[in-house]
Amino acid sequence: MATPTQTGTGRARWIRPLVQDLHAYVPGEQPKVRGLIKLNTNENPYPPSPKVLQAVQGAVDGRLRLYPNPTCERLREKLARLHGCDSEQVIVGNGSDELLAMAVRCFTEPAAALMAGKGRSKRPSAATVQYFTPSYSLYPVLSDTHGSTRNPVPLKADFSMPTVTELRRGKVWDFDAALSLVTTPNAPSGRSYSVAELDALCEATRGVVVLDEAYVDFARGHAMEIALQRENVLVARTFSKAYSLCFQRVGYFVGHPALIAALHKIRDSYNVNGLGQVAAEATLGDLAYYRANFRKVIATRERLAAGLAEAGFSVLPSETNFLLVTPSGPPAREWLERLRERKILVRWFSTPGLDSYLRISIGTDGEADALLRAVRAILGGRSSGQRLGGRPA
Amino acid sequence: MATPTQTGTGRARWIRPLVQDLHAYVPGEQPKVRGLIKLNTNENPYPPSPKVLQAVQGAVDGRLRLYPNPTCERLREKLARLHGCDSEQVIVGNGSDELLAMAVRCFTEPAAALMAGKGRSKRPSAATVQYFTPSYSLYPVLSDTHGSTRNPVPLKADFSMPTVTELRRGKVWDFDAALSLVTTPNAPSGRSYSVAELDALCEATRGVVVLDEAYVDFARGHAMEIALQRENVLVARTFSKAYSLCFQRVGYFVGHPALIAALHKIRDSYNVNGLGQVAAEATLGDLAYYRANFRKVIATRERLAAGLAEAGFSVLPSETNFLLVTPSGPPAREWLERLRERKILVRWFSTPGLDSYLRISIGTDGEADALLRAVRAILGGRSSGQRLGGRPA
Repeated sequence: MATPTQTGTGRARWIRPLVQDLHAYVPGEQPKVRGLIKLNTNENPYPPSPKVLQAVQGAVDGRLRLYPNPTCERLREKLARLHGCDSEQVIVGNGSDELLAMAVRCFTEPAAALMAGKGRSKRPSAATVQYFTPSYSLYPVLSDTHGSTRNPVPLKADFSMPTVTELRRGKVWDFDAALSLVTTPNAPSGRSYSVAELDALCEATRGVVVLDEAYVDFARGHAMEIALQRENVLVARTFSKAYSLCFQRVGYFVGHPALIAALHKIRDSYNVNGLGQVAAEATLGDLAYYRANFRKVIATRERLAAGLAEAGFSVLPSETNFLLVTPSGPPAREWLERLRERKILVRWFSTPGLDSYLRISIGTDGEADALLRAVRAILGGRSSGQRLGGRPA
Repeated sequence: MATPTQTGTGRARWIRPLVQDLHAYVPGEQPKVRGLIKLNTNENPYPPSPKVLQAVQGAVDGRLRLYPNPTCERLREKLARLHGCDSEQVIVGNGSDELLAMAVRCFTEPAAALMAGKGRSKRPSAATVQYFTPSYSLYPVLSDTHGSTRNPVPLKADFSMPTVTELRRGKVWDFDAALSLVTTPNAPSGRSYSVAELDALCEATRGVVVLDEAYVDFARGHAMEIALQRENVLVARTFSKAYSLCFQRVGYFVGHPALIAALHKIRDSYNVNGLGQVAAEATLGDLAYYRANFRKVIATRERLAAGLAEAGFSVLPSETNFLLVTPSGPPAREWLERLRERKILVRWFSTPGLDSYLRISIGTDGEADALLRAVRAILGGRSSGQRLGGRPA
């Protein structure tokens, strides 16, 4: 940094006040050391299908010099066939995170712009990004980044969704919010909502609703039909979690062609890398492999839930690839440290109301066993008399 | 699309008026048929280095299930070593296009938000995205997408850059513009600017200046030192063109840590795919291979320029991997069609002032020969007497 031409205090003037005030989203830790059991970012414990690895390997050649298909044309066609719609109802993103950020920019006004707006875009709801709490902690960050107005609406104490009648009575849900983001099944609660209650919410809400189904493959049902029927609804899906493809960043939205076309307008020209497109297309050609993985993850989840309950943990029912638990013994934050000492990473949120929980991603059966052993050892090492009856660690 | 619940006219109300008015950037054609000679999107004719292909192939395994490094830590460290700076001075994007869009969102206000602004952010220049014309046609699209105010400033007739004195006299360049984007060497002119004239511009301009060096490896010099010395300057680079990696979307900015930190705040958490990171890191380990490619491309460029000049084309001097030419014979737009009939794609811009030109990417020597043969055949087939003296096609 030779000969700076501006004073230090001058630098801030280049950065928008809005950006200066931002607190960036902090993703779960990606450890550099190997040998850790990583149950903190909801990754799938199983690798992609051998056919997918083969397809990607086969594509690593001179074509890397060429631009990828800018609109993911073949992938969109395959997704459209899978969901029984047209490819004009599908947009693919650099992970579903990119599409969520685009939805905020496409459907909601920056609050500061309302003064200059006309008609509907002058109303406060035109700047509102609405979501239930707790849910995906990225949503408020996306709202802040765009300068929109957050409207967090608390779920009930058991993390169930208030009914439309309750929402009307509570007067907190804004039925005119420009954009409502609903994680279903929810994170970090793991709880799913029924198609009937989601549909009632989408019908009553007059703005755009995104049903974020990042974890839906581990659930009993899905709500895709709502996006295919209602013009104000988009369903978000991702190849990251259920399809073991976090590394390559591929997610998509399904919805009405008018909403999808608007999103395409603000999309970066070549937003999805080529090998990601190849991998996602090959994934759709081997769904049986992944469905077997879903069954394995679900079986491990139920076994782990039982084991943790036996250790005195309070375990919420889950339809995802993670569990939200209240640990017995030490407070949740201490569990984070204690498990890390034993080379097991889980997720803890400092958010008030969530800070007594741990979120534990579902790994392999072996990883579940290792976690249960560590839990027993940590509890057994305490003098509180909370020693478990199970076999010694 | 069963039972829509809203009227057709109702749909538009979900989409921001700003987005409804947008015209999306149209990238060069990515043909689906094979066997075409593709000289339309400035891709490198040579594949990535064998070592890069090997590194990527070696990374296609179970790790695809995991999230990539969210900040491209290792790649940033290697880039920092390459450019003699700290990794805090580097941010990596999903192609440099993503970073250009982020710069607009990070440093410029939406014009509609100025009314609500205070102090500096209330001044019209706080919403200004400024660029020379012609240059990268994405810039106005990025400005419109964010709701900023475009300030296009014409280059001189020979595509050279006005001096600061001329810019002051012309009163068109806004020295307080929040963001100025300068393609250097320029596209589509192919012309480069000297470090001295770029530095004078960056010194005189009080806002952030991005020097977009997408094509710099085909030029005689570069301006990286300005980003390392001036606190208001960012240099943009990409692995796409010179490093044959369009498919994997990796670009980066270098600049002052304060500007880079602000960009990180608004970055998608996992914005760069893992195999792209692997490929870019391996690229930096085999720069000799790429430098040999630059020399080949430059040699072909000079040979093609001479051949086209011989055919009566007016050829602008180029320090990039493309040529901007005024064809002899039929108008430029007709050349686009006539060459396409012969399976050769080039780029034509409908922009007034540019519509008499063709932009031709530099391919292999064989592709240059094929183009020259096609040019001679097309000219030879005309009754205008513009037949060439060269050997018959």
